[in-house]
Amino acid sequence: MTSALTPAELRQQVRSGHFRLPTAGYCGEFAQANLVILPNAHADDFLRFCQRNQKACPLLGVGEAGQWQVPKLGADLDLRTDTPGYYVYRDGLLTEERDRLNDIWQDDLVVFAIGCSFSFEHMLMQAGIVLRHIEQKKNVAMYRTNIPNETAGPFAGNMVVSMRPMKARDAIRAIEITSRFPAVHGAPVHIGNPAEIGIADLARPDFGEAVEIMPDELPVYWACGVTPQEAIRAAKLPFVITHKPGYMLVTDIPNSTLAAY
Amino acid sequence: MTSALTPAELRQQVRSGHFRLPTAGYCGEFAQANLVILPNAHADDFLRFCQRNQKACPLLGVGEAGQWQVPKLGADLDLRTDTPGYYVYRDGLLTEERDRLNDIWQDDLVVFAIGCSFSFEHMLMQAGIVLRHIEQKKNVAMYRTNIPNETAGPFAGNMVVSMRPMKARDAIRAIEITSRFPAVHGAPVHIGNPAEIGIADLARPDFGEAVEIMPDELPVYWACGVTPQEAIRAAKLPFVITHKPGYMLVTDIPNSTLAAY
Repeated sequence: MTSALTPAELRQQVRSGHFRLPTAGYCGEFAQANLVILPNAHADDFLRFCQRNQKACPLLGVGEAGQWQVPKLGADLDLRTDTPGYYVYRDGLLTEERDRLNDIWQDDLVVFAIGCSFSFEHMLMQAGIVLRHIEQKKNVAMYRTNIPNETAGPFAGNMVVSMRPMKARDAIRAIEITSRFPAVHGAPVHIGNPAEIGIADLARPDFGEAVEIMPDELPVYWACGVTPQEAIRAAKLPFVITHKPGYMLVTDIPNSTLAAY
Repeated sequence: MTSALTPAELRQQVRSGHFRLPTAGYCGEFAQANLVILPNAHADDFLRFCQRNQKACPLLGVGEAGQWQVPKLGADLDLRTDTPGYYVYRDGLLTEERDRLNDIWQDDLVVFAIGCSFSFEHMLMQAGIVLRHIEQKKNVAMYRTNIPNETAGPFAGNMVVSMRPMKARDAIRAIEITSRFPAVHGAPVHIGNPAEIGIADLARPDFGEAVEIMPDELPVYWACGVTPQEAIRAAKLPFVITHKPGYMLVTDIPNSTLAAY
């Protein structure tokens, strides 16, 4: 099992039950996606929430009610089986972790695929920027902020950001690069002093793992795909499915095609 | 006299001797240029210097030996008369300030027009970013750094940068915007701690005027068109002409056409 697999090959391994790992490092040339799957009754509100909070919730694709195939994301895709881990939330609580959704699929479920920072991290690494959390094989540090989301129906809350420490020159290059990729969170939302966006202590992330920040580095903060998951949990919907964090949907969309110009 | 003048109208006012002011704020939609005019014997080295140090010396146009018209910069251009102030350097020393060059023009002189920060400042202001030095009607603060230029023939020295303080979100937006304009210095070369690029005290610029930096602001540093002038002075060439700082050549090139993608 190596990253030389094509997305279709990897998804086939997932579908057959042979791949049950975090997807970081696999199929690096292709976009991976956060998944949110919820009943059609809430789909319009959630779509508006994504539209109004595009930095955190950039949509790579949206299905039709009951549709488990979104051809734009992958020709052979079966969204009930092709993600290596799913979480099921009921009334805002994580009640179940599943390998596949066939038994609980409903004809009113709508799939939302939201861009993932793995895509821009790949671009940054290709540009020679060393990402400490990847170097140290850690999950990226994520923080709740005081930046309010625009609300839509029951979906509200504040933005969650991921933070990567960088030297100033790398931070500038990272802003240049990521600004070209609005479909995967785009440019950072903040740089420098964490208190300005309501983060009390960078050493204590709300999600993921802390990394050291060197004296010649600036913390650089990107809107994070955990934002919609937080909003969904807070909305206490009766029934929502997401991917298991880190266990993403690997799509057929080449990262390079996401460049905005 | 208002900024509603076209570049050709402004240059006509300059040529007829009616305009002898700094050009900031005039013809904001069009690129203004730093001028370096030197004998052909040094032109190849200087062209290579510009090519090797593009952040500081982005070339908008280069003439042929003896040519005082560079049509790309303006259809009716006469580079001996159309800039509202010229400096003449001999052996590295400023020896003369002139309104026009007709009396000292030589058939071996080559014109270099180098992009100017006025272009990107216009773009930043259009994006709603307040620039303190403009708000306070000051010349931008400029600093010698320890960032070495790549040398070419007699041209060497360190980069000079201009600094603009900004809130983090404006700094990020400014990096996004200026990265699209490599012809006018492009993205910043540094952000944050001045000591990292050899600046001892932001309150004491080497050129221009200091501005206050608020607690919630980051200093953002761009490569500056003063860099080549410094290199030229240090090279102690027998004969060089430049524009008088602030008294720029106003070209017919719309800033919008300088966007790189």
